[in-house]
Amino acid sequence: MDKHHYAVIMAGGGGTRLWPVSRKNLPKQLLPLFGAETLFQSTVARLIDLFPPERILVVTVAEQAREMRLQVPAIPDQNYLIETAPRGTASVVGLAATVLRKRDPQAAMAMLPSDHFIRNRDLFHYLLSAAFEVASQGFLVTLGIAPLAPSTAYGYIQQGELLTDQFKYPAYRVRQFREKPNEKAAQEMLRDGGHSWNSGMFIWQADAILAEIELQLPALFSILTKIGAAWGTANQDALLRSLWGDLKTETIDYAVMEQARNVAVLPASGLGWNDVGSWDTLFDVLLPDRDGNVSATREHLCIDTHNTLVYSKNNERLIVTIGLDDTVIVDTPDALLVCKSDQAQKVRDVVDQLRSGNQEKYL
Amino acid sequence: MDKHHYAVIMAGGGGTRLWPVSRKNLPKQLLPLFGAETLFQSTVARLIDLFPPERILVVTVAEQAREMRLQVPAIPDQNYLIETAPRGTASVVGLAATVLRKRDPQAAMAMLPSDHFIRNRDLFHYLLSAAFEVASQGFLVTLGIAPLAPSTAYGYIQQGELLTDQFKYPAYRVRQFREKPNEKAAQEMLRDGGHSWNSGMFIWQADAILAEIELQLPALFSILTKIGAAWGTANQDALLRSLWGDLKTETIDYAVMEQARNVAVLPASGLGWNDVGSWDTLFDVLLPDRDGNVSATREHLCIDTHNTLVYSKNNERLIVTIGLDDTVIVDTPDALLVCKSDQAQKVRDVVDQLRSGNQEKYL
Repeated sequence: MDKHHYAVIMAGGGGTRLWPVSRKNLPKQLLPLFGAETLFQSTVARLIDLFPPERILVVTVAEQAREMRLQVPAIPDQNYLIETAPRGTASVVGLAATVLRKRDPQAAMAMLPSDHFIRNRDLFHYLLSAAFEVASQGFLVTLGIAPLAPSTAYGYIQQGELLTDQFKYPAYRVRQFREKPNEKAAQEMLRDGGHSWNSGMFIWQADAILAEIELQLPALFSILTKIGAAWGTANQDALLRSLWGDLKTETIDYAVMEQARNVAVLPASGLGWNDVGSWDTLFDVLLPDRDGNVSATREHLCIDTHNTLVYSKNNERLIVTIGLDDTVIVDTPDALLVCKSDQAQKVRDVVDQLRSGNQEKYL
Repeated sequence: MDKHHYAVIMAGGGGTRLWPVSRKNLPKQLLPLFGAETLFQSTVARLIDLFPPERILVVTVAEQAREMRLQVPAIPDQNYLIETAPRGTASVVGLAATVLRKRDPQAAMAMLPSDHFIRNRDLFHYLLSAAFEVASQGFLVTLGIAPLAPSTAYGYIQQGELLTDQFKYPAYRVRQFREKPNEKAAQEMLRDGGHSWNSGMFIWQADAILAEIELQLPALFSILTKIGAAWGTANQDALLRSLWGDLKTETIDYAVMEQARNVAVLPASGLGWNDVGSWDTLFDVLLPDRDGNVSATREHLCIDTHNTLVYSKNNERLIVTIGLDDTVIVDTPDALLVCKSDQAQKVRDVVDQLRSGNQEKYL
């Protein structure tokens, strides 16, 4: 990668949909969900061949930064940008772009979630370099994922015309960002083609995205300007703390990209991408046996069971399943979840109920 | 009850179908499955209004006797008859009848399993006294349960003509004992009427059943005669030990009752009887809520769940169910069972697999 290229890992989310394994103080990016590495460690490992650690930044909240530094000591301390309060992805992007432009006026950056799974690392590297090529022409680039099913769990990106045949990978102008659709709309988009899932991975020049933020979110831009001016001075942290709390929570996709000019999408297929957004997604990530079962546990005795995930964390227990179909079982020392796979999204409701029911000890 | 009436509780079974709560050394009759009392304690409590403790006998194996004495200290030590090895109900009945006849030549006895649930205690008392009335005429009496469904989990008793209208409760001659039928045969029996489930509860004079054993099982009778002669002498236990191992395993229903003359059945309905034979029977015993769910646990958070049993033993865990139907969840510290209700009989296969797979620690 060019020495002006940076990777920025976004790791703010609390992550409620993988409860009871993910908890308030241990969100999914900090967990070794698959094997020995945490999702955050895997995210860094995917980047380290392209970017030296000095050019990898992390934007996170104070509660998570400590654990992250332990998990990935290679990234320098000053590369951790600490949000004093989470305010959505727009401010995360703005802060990272502001800090990077101050450090390197020619900075171009890839914004990457910390908690995604990507099976095909080589293709990911190729796509990133292709995206930086498109971004070098001033485009705001997003990686789209060719949809595998009419999922209602993702936002969609509608592509327009091919930008040019000069880039090494086809890039299309973005016609529209669409929030999570209902099932009928999702089916139509799949049938029509020309739509990608919004992966939340973006590549752009710091200059270009800040210009767009100035247009779309002037209040944020004004705060970023003040922070940029103080960055590197003794006043840096105090100012960030005092200004950040007043920000409105906004997401970069809908508050900025939706209205922006020059937005491009690179539709990726074969990336083996998964946002690990709920327990049922683990059927795609871990490889099921011929009955469709996934046993991520020490001892599982399985009788007449199909398409069932058994996930046990730090537990020595024997788990026996009889006659089950399409079920998710998640076993932790203080909480057990048994859930139909197609209702795994409702785990979020569980967390809400526990919070409002004064059962914080389980969160 | 007449002073010649005795109750004999049979408690030999290992009980594998309520695994993982019931274990090799803690079979279901010794467990407080419903509330504070164990099934054995409840069985005794049901009898104690009718029989003083000196007239309640227990036939069991050495491994269980110690715990039983702790659970029910009221029953005198010499009333525990210890089988040196389990040899089926025929020998249990024979031993109890032999010992009782020696103690009281006019003894009549009710043979009662230790591990059944009976909701309607008053009706049970009434039926027992009615059964002793019929037994006083020399009949071998069995309590039949009016079937609630074409279950394949029970043996059936086909009734013949009404014996007489002189008894206080209708008693019928037994035409046939039928082993557990297939579903088609069970449906036919239910449609035809005139069939009861075999409850395994029998009432007879010690004399009458021993005469029948003499006819049907002469080898057992000959051993019982020797044991009877030695009973109460110093040689009693040594003789029992030396003779018992050679016995063939036989059940009283099919090895004796099937061929016997003068067998009567009292068909009981409304007794609220349940043999607690598998996890799905707990839906009948514990009272489900309006969604059909039974939560026998400390904390159960239930979303879109129906006809589901959550049973947790000595566990402080939160259990969350989402989108489940007709499921049984049994949670113990070292093993978790998740099972479709209609396959609860297969728990026995689990125990077999664990035994043959060298996983005795879970048994």
